[in-house]
Amino acid sequence: MTLDHTGADADETAADVEASPLRALWAARSVAVVGASDKPGSLGRLPVEFLQRFGYAGDIVPVRPDGATVCGVPSVARLTDHAGPIDLAMIMVAATRVPGAIADCAAAGVPVALVCTSGFAETGEEGAELQAEVVAAARAGQQVVRIVGPNCIGSVGVGTGQVSSFSPLFSGVDTTLVPGGIGFVSQSGALGYGAVSLAFERGLGLGWVVNTGNEADVSATEVMNALAEEPECSGILAYAESLTDLPGLRRLAATGLPVAILKAGRSAAGAKAAASHTGALAAGDKVVDAALRQLGIVRADDVTDLLDIGEVMGLVPRHARAEEEVEPGAGGRVAVVTTSGGSGILAADALEAHGLSLAALRPETTAALDEIVPAFGSTANPVDVTASVMSNSSLFDRTLEAIAADPGVDVILAAFCVLTGKDVDDVVTSLSRVARSSGKPVVVVRTGADHLAPQATALMRAAGIPSYPTPARAVRAVAALTRFTARRQSVSPQSAPSHGQHTGQPVEVPSSGASEDEMKALLGRAGIPVPFGRFAESPADAVAAVSEAGGRAVFKAVVPGLVHKSDAGGVVLGVTEQSAPAAWEQVASLGGRVWTEEMVPGGVEALVGFAPSPLGTVITVGVGGVLTEVVHDVALRLLPVGREEVAEMIEETRLASLLSGVRGAAPADREALIDVVVELARLVEGWPAGFELDLNPVTVMPTGVRVLDAAYVAPDQSTLSHQE
Amino acid sequence: MTLDHTGADADETAADVEASPLRALWAARSVAVVGASDKPGSLGRLPVEFLQRFGYAGDIVPVRPDGATVCGVPSVARLTDHAGPIDLAMIMVAATRVPGAIADCAAAGVPVALVCTSGFAETGEEGAELQAEVVAAARAGQQVVRIVGPNCIGSVGVGTGQVSSFSPLFSGVDTTLVPGGIGFVSQSGALGYGAVSLAFERGLGLGWVVNTGNEADVSATEVMNALAEEPECSGILAYAESLTDLPGLRRLAATGLPVAILKAGRSAAGAKAAASHTGALAAGDKVVDAALRQLGIVRADDVTDLLDIGEVMGLVPRHARAEEEVEPGAGGRVAVVTTSGGSGILAADALEAHGLSLAALRPETTAALDEIVPAFGSTANPVDVTASVMSNSSLFDRTLEAIAADPGVDVILAAFCVLTGKDVDDVVTSLSRVARSSGKPVVVVRTGADHLAPQATALMRAAGIPSYPTPARAVRAVAALTRFTARRQSVSPQSAPSHGQHTGQPVEVPSSGASEDEMKALLGRAGIPVPFGRFAESPADAVAAVSEAGGRAVFKAVVPGLVHKSDAGGVVLGVTEQSAPAAWEQVASLGGRVWTEEMVPGGVEALVGFAPSPLGTVITVGVGGVLTEVVHDVALRLLPVGREEVAEMIEETRLASLLSGVRGAAPADREALIDVVVELARLVEGWPAGFELDLNPVTVMPTGVRVLDAAYVAPDQSTLSHQE
Repeated sequence: MTLDHTGADADETAADVEASPLRALWAARSVAVVGASDKPGSLGRLPVEFLQRFGYAGDIVPVRPDGATVCGVPSVARLTDHAGPIDLAMIMVAATRVPGAIADCAAAGVPVALVCTSGFAETGEEGAELQAEVVAAARAGQQVVRIVGPNCIGSVGVGTGQVSSFSPLFSGVDTTLVPGGIGFVSQSGALGYGAVSLAFERGLGLGWVVNTGNEADVSATEVMNALAEEPECSGILAYAESLTDLPGLRRLAATGLPVAILKAGRSAAGAKAAASHTGALAAGDKVVDAALRQLGIVRADDVTDLLDIGEVMGLVPRHARAEEEVEPGAGGRVAVVTTSGGSGILAADALEAHGLSLAALRPETTAALDEIVPAFGSTANPVDVTASVMSNSSLFDRTLEAIAADPGVDVILAAFCVLTGKDVDDVVTSLSRVARSSGKPVVVVRTGADHLAPQATALMRAAGIPSYPTPARAVRAVAALTRFTARRQSVSPQSAPSHGQHTGQPVEVPSSGASEDEMKALLGRAGIPVPFGRFAESPADAVAAVSEAGGRAVFKAVVPGLVHKSDAGGVVLGVTEQSAPAAWEQVASLGGRVWTEEMVPGGVEALVGFAPSPLGTVITVGVGGVLTEVVHDVALRLLPVGREEVAEMIEETRLASLLSGVRGAAPADREALIDVVVELARLVEGWPAGFELDLNPVTVMPTGVRVLDAAYVAPDQSTLSHQE
Repeated sequence: MTLDHTGADADETAADVEASPLRALWAARSVAVVGASDKPGSLGRLPVEFLQRFGYAGDIVPVRPDGATVCGVPSVARLTDHAGPIDLAMIMVAATRVPGAIADCAAAGVPVALVCTSGFAETGEEGAELQAEVVAAARAGQQVVRIVGPNCIGSVGVGTGQVSSFSPLFSGVDTTLVPGGIGFVSQSGALGYGAVSLAFERGLGLGWVVNTGNEADVSATEVMNALAEEPECSGILAYAESLTDLPGLRRLAATGLPVAILKAGRSAAGAKAAASHTGALAAGDKVVDAALRQLGIVRADDVTDLLDIGEVMGLVPRHARAEEEVEPGAGGRVAVVTTSGGSGILAADALEAHGLSLAALRPETTAALDEIVPAFGSTANPVDVTASVMSNSSLFDRTLEAIAADPGVDVILAAFCVLTGKDVDDVVTSLSRVARSSGKPVVVVRTGADHLAPQATALMRAAGIPSYPTPARAVRAVAALTRFTARRQSVSPQSAPSHGQHTGQPVEVPSSGASEDEMKALLGRAGIPVPFGRFAESPADAVAAVSEAGGRAVFKAVVPGLVHKSDAGGVVLGVTEQSAPAAWEQVASLGGRVWTEEMVPGGVEALVGFAPSPLGTVITVGVGGVLTEVVHDVALRLLPVGREEVAEMIEETRLASLLSGVRGAAPADREALIDVVVELARLVEGWPAGFELDLNPVTVMPTGVRVLDAAYVAPDQSTLSHQE
């Protein structure tokens, strides 16, 4: 029999399972519970109880040596004793017995084992070794067993009633599953199922829930990718403590599915707590931020925020993902319709805070509204329609139609306070009508107790209109919607940079101990603008070198081990042909060679850096030179980056205003800087992963750019110290 | 009869009403409704209905010319026709008839009129004139009538059932009043009563609700001060669109009562919407932020946030306000007790974001926990007690006691996810026991649906334990609690600076067109360190001046109207006795006088500024000199400020790291800068309000400070342009 709730037949289902074995987490034809128990209240009994209670129609296969009955179902002594195939095995035996249980799974051809048992990597070194044994056992046989967990609370297929979990949520007397299109993936079991209970409580329907625990094998990112293949999946919410699979996240983003992640460990204290909790190597928080932003994945601030964002996911039409068209809401220009001046102001505040805008209504719209809205209302955005319009369906309809017809409006935010019974029905009817006819997202704020209009929430949900108690929460969700839809134009399923496998021209890789002058020469050969420079071998040669450099030069000592050149008298600025011999003598006296370099006129000093992170190579662009430490203002991205992203990075920092010219200074050559950064990013893609490169200062002149300093650290020397 | 719910007798009540006539808004002995109507659904009928429905025991006095019956109560034709005194009159007649109604109030000796009618200042100029007439009428008689509104929805005394309001909230079939100690004041009617309905829905009890509308006379701040006199008032929540009464806010803060305000208009767009909505002159948002922070008033971000903060107000013991002792929670060191690693990490993240900290547990505490918590838990903070401890009351009790006994713990945050029925009872019992015995605040996070433990919320409320659905929301409220209690040590009932009435030594006030040199001279006479300087009247005199200045000087042209001195060649740096004659000739050639000044060695450049705002004189301290526009990093406060606040301002900006010495620079004289700023703040208190003063740069040397530039704008010339 098939449990595929898409209605496909058995053969197709088998093919699907082959394509993505993780489907067994929510669409298994049979679930085995290894270590099942009949004892009321025991953990080993709960999954059997829950599968029965929530109507799972597949085979439930308790496994226990004595073959006793569990919840009325006879058990088998071993997995191989079961007649049919087993798609999913929940492992609930003591930790030391888990490797053996996994070997049994392999023998029985079970594709996925959900290891609920704890006492592994989360407890320390000994547990980590045992966890490695589990993974080894899973990979020892002919057929690999995919491991979910250990230390996890299980998974749920809401549509199939497959509660392959022992979360106490499902023992709640009043617990019902609320089906819907959202997938929920959590690395934490307790918090994850807590959030699921809150989602169900507010009526936010979920289709699939998976807790990945210690992630010895299967990661949350892999599960999200498997969920994205479900045709009914309209969005994914996740809680994560560590994210390391950038290619996986990139694939996920490329599906176009809206994804929001609550990534914990934002603070130093939180990251430390997360590390001790999961033992996972965490990428710096700013790197995670940059990666998610680049991929159009929204980062939630809190569980409430995560669920709030889930509410708008249904407004992103899935079919449109394949097409290249402007999506609803993409512009972020919001018309606020309200009867409460206060709500309008709070909405305007929140819009600005989230980088959205109050739509500027066109004159035709204002004129149309002038005919409907009384003089004591407001036909400017926020539009105060007044209570008299609100209580008159036909007037309210006309108001909404006029606003929705305005091409400058991307989203309609309707904000009400205390609304009672019948008023709500009428308002919701009008709102859903205009949402349908215009295709524009409509989002509601209702700052009032549920009991004042008990049917309102259900009415709005049925009409597909997300509703929030405050303007700030609604606007935050609209910002996420805008991000989901705007991304569609920019994220392509391009892969991460394949370090060392650059397919273009052959790339020169720096040698391990490359000095500043060697690096500049390498950059120069790659077409990056560096100052003209060469070694001067004698006082007379120094005169010639100054002449070649254009008559004014900088002399620098190149002495192995000499770091603070300036402090040691190893740098002389503004050397002329006349002063060259004396300057050469001074610098040469430090015992090394004398590097002579074109003196670059003043300009805006930027910095460009590259550093490794668990998510890939990070590029940093920001304020450089003497202001580096004072201003401390840089933007981060993961490679690869294009012109648009580099321009965005500049805009995020004070470098933007420096380049525009402060205190009457001439504007600097922003385009040339962007060119150089893009070139550098391309160049280093050909280098082996793990290197560090710091270019600071990069001087941006009124015309042109020069890289004035370059420091390179080869991969084996790198300490990840530049991560933030 | 008396309606004073404190149980005082009639005479005392009368005395109270005399002390604060605004008490009539919630404890009136009689409420008149001018413009009452018997027509079902009409606004004029609602207050009479509501007063009856919610058990108001005072006299209800409908007023209408025909003397008809309203809801069974006979009306009087005029206010003066009523036999007894009328404490509060609701005015619900047409706008043009309101001035007449107010005159009637004056004639009848009504102390407070609540003007519900709209169509006044909120509609434009004509309405503003009518509003002025209303105020004039209120002040024309022998006894002044205080006006609340117009354009307001009324007030509620929850304890007395005095629903002197027509908000649709009170027509809700299931609406009940939830009494409590919080006062709620809102300038917006719809949003205010919407928030009230949400407070009641979550069980947050309110004692008093007032909507102040257009604030033609009585402001929200005045109402808050009246509420603060209520002995049962444990805190105040407010929604405001404009705050201009700093002395009033200062008096309120000095009562020690916890106050949180949702101040709308944070954004430019929101401020514009607020201005068009109320017509009020708004202080810049950063000024409001600074004022509230200085007063220990917490600024809420949202209605949800405002109510979340209300939940912790009960933890600030009122009696302690008079005493000088360390309050519970004041240190902000939080112990997190959890069974969910994820919740612990999220709590740690939120603590850092709000400037709180994870308490460092002392060795004794950790040792005690080691004996209770199993090895797979964690005895470091966040403390993961594990499910086995949680489900064993005596172990959980011992855990909590050990943590509460730690002097390094100020607050206990207990974070749980899916908890069911009986577990919750036990946990709440343990938590309330330790809260009582230790006197330390206990706050709960329960990330799980209500239905899993339906009694939990009520149990916790009864035990005085605030509960939140997510760690972030709980921590945010704990941050507010910390602010409420920390403030007690710093806010005194000192008054705002009495500009022009300085009581110390006579203060020299700058003349209206004071030039830079005149300002420096004035500052020098007041003891502020300025560079030595004087005019040089001839080339020979210039040589002498350089000598007097220590051998190196700056020459500056002083030419009326010349602003960009440097660009015009009017500034010569590094003048020696030798170069003095030529430099004098050059500067003098611009047609004015030549100012010669001691050349101050390099240092950190700060800026100090003063500017007027509707809330008082604002002081600005931050990064100055050439970095001013690049870094754009300043802190704001309202005068007066003390040393501590100045030090805090420096810490808030990058000036702090500059003063500490970046890139190997020597540290600068921070203490000297603080001295100078404090001196300046004292000096300008003697100046008439409305001036602007910009000191930039103020050079901070390794030892000492010099004010290198000073620009003054007299009050009448000021345009408030410096407000942010």
